[in-house]
Amino acid sequence: MGVVVPLDEERARSQNAIAQLQALVAKDMEDVNEFIRERMSSEVPMIPELASHLINSGGKRLRPMLTIAASHICGYKGQDHIKLAASVEFLHTATLLHDDVVDESNLRRGQKTARMLWGNQASVLVGDFLLGRAFRLMVETKSLRALEIIANAASVIAEGEVMQLAAAKDTGTTEDAYMRVIQAKTAALFAAAAEVGAVIAQRGGSEAAALESYGRNLGIAFQLVDDALDYGGRAASLGKNVGDDFREGKITLPVVLAFRRGDAQERGFWQRTLQEGDQKDGDLEHATHLMTKHGAIEDTITRARHYGAIAKDALAIFPDSPYRQALIDVVDFCISRTY
Amino acid sequence: MGVVVPLDEERARSQNAIAQLQALVAKDMEDVNEFIRERMSSEVPMIPELASHLINSGGKRLRPMLTIAASHICGYKGQDHIKLAASVEFLHTATLLHDDVVDESNLRRGQKTARMLWGNQASVLVGDFLLGRAFRLMVETKSLRALEIIANAASVIAEGEVMQLAAAKDTGTTEDAYMRVIQAKTAALFAAAAEVGAVIAQRGGSEAAALESYGRNLGIAFQLVDDALDYGGRAASLGKNVGDDFREGKITLPVVLAFRRGDAQERGFWQRTLQEGDQKDGDLEHATHLMTKHGAIEDTITRARHYGAIAKDALAIFPDSPYRQALIDVVDFCISRTY
Repeated sequence: MGVVVPLDEERARSQNAIAQLQALVAKDMEDVNEFIRERMSSEVPMIPELASHLINSGGKRLRPMLTIAASHICGYKGQDHIKLAASVEFLHTATLLHDDVVDESNLRRGQKTARMLWGNQASVLVGDFLLGRAFRLMVETKSLRALEIIANAASVIAEGEVMQLAAAKDTGTTEDAYMRVIQAKTAALFAAAAEVGAVIAQRGGSEAAALESYGRNLGIAFQLVDDALDYGGRAASLGKNVGDDFREGKITLPVVLAFRRGDAQERGFWQRTLQEGDQKDGDLEHATHLMTKHGAIEDTITRARHYGAIAKDALAIFPDSPYRQALIDVVDFCISRTY
Repeated sequence: MGVVVPLDEERARSQNAIAQLQALVAKDMEDVNEFIRERMSSEVPMIPELASHLINSGGKRLRPMLTIAASHICGYKGQDHIKLAASVEFLHTATLLHDDVVDESNLRRGQKTARMLWGNQASVLVGDFLLGRAFRLMVETKSLRALEIIANAASVIAEGEVMQLAAAKDTGTTEDAYMRVIQAKTAALFAAAAEVGAVIAQRGGSEAAALESYGRNLGIAFQLVDDALDYGGRAASLGKNVGDDFREGKITLPVVLAFRRGDAQERGFWQRTLQEGDQKDGDLEHATHLMTKHGAIEDTITRARHYGAIAKDALAIFPDSPYRQALIDVVDFCISRTY
């Protein structure tokens, strides 16, 4: 009754997948990090302190790496991709700060959340500060199309979070409804991050569309795996506690599947624990047991593979190159990651 | 021992001051309101519900009116001022939604705050949604300079709020430190709202600078009067309870003045009630008494007049016109308003 996730073989194949992308964009990412440090400065000391706590907490910078790689796969030779990538990371950081407030999260990436250290109020405000700085950085690229794409993403992400709030604790959520939530709250930013790389390279047509599709489907796969890991990862490497989603009563795809496949008694269990929030010792273990019984985690990963395959195919219009290969490998990395 | 505020004569003179501006911009403001309605729509019903609760709660739309009037005083004949004005109002609404969460406010403009009706979580997220929509609207004007100005304002507003948070409950705050807070949290948006009117009319030089200065100083005067009203207005017309700032332990200019002018016993009172948050029945009355004794409210209004005078003089470079006169009158309105 193995918990989770990928075949060992696949895991081995993808182990270095992110390392290849990281190597290709390493120099650019140094510049991105420099911009991030520079542009989160403020005469109000609490702002860079709080922001850097999250920004330097060991995130992989996956989204800005997508922007950099997308610009290069489109042959971009300028410097504005650095600013776009930094602003994508700022927008992402702002949404994380606000999410942690909304979800009342105590831990992120294995560390206390900013709201635990500086309070909810400062987390909301520093998020707003970073949003302003993100747009300021984008303005410097003079790309109205990039601005439009990222402004749209900012609204759509918030829409997704509100949808999730409205659907929260409803165990009757359908898979379709759930997919609409993660398309908005997660995939929209992956899509925008990749698309603006093409836009800044003046490849606004089929290449921008391809990268948008790549990013969107990668983002969906990424979120599905995240949802699966919450019922089967390890806290130390995951940087969050297994069972956080369960404790917060979040309805994720593993729950949607286990609820639908369960009998009346099992549905009663999900309703009590997630809908009514009445949880006892042993409930998380029972939840994981029910998921294993119904193959809910496994099938969540299978769904992730489906979207991952679409992401890979979206890149087929580009000639073979190290960047294309690295972006393809990132899909496997996201699906097979154990952290 | 009269409470507050302006001379009757001055009040009478300025009573219709806002009405003149309102009449001049009435047609444009209909278009602004139409844009606002249209652009706050979402497939997620909670978003327009929550947003319209605040947007339709009877605010005067002072900031977008500044944008409209500023564009006309600069001879603008196009339609993009409508979009800029709507995005200014969205940005303002987003900051109010977040402020109410940060300040844990229960009432705004005499109504329950959105956070009381839909929760803190939704208020944070709908604020983010509106920020995204604000930038999306600005992109449509294709004015990178306007985008830059408003993106900067968004960061500066958040900086001001964080400064206020850091200074909160410190009765030793100096007048200078307090001025830095309100320059950022209030005056920056007034300044941006007026400046972008000039920018969209292609008057980026001395006219933009004049309108920026007008907006900034008007915003300072507006905030100072707001602070004074909190110790002397009437709840029904003010749309908030008198004493809200006191109960929240906010250090505003009337407090700064009364604290500095008081004796040791009085300073002890301010420290107990605001710094330590230990408040009893009768404390608000005593606070108002101390302010009257030291002329703290009166002198806050006198300070507001100083900034109001600078705002008026900033407009001197423009030839006389109904718009210029209306903008000048708005200064008197802001200083003399009893609501």
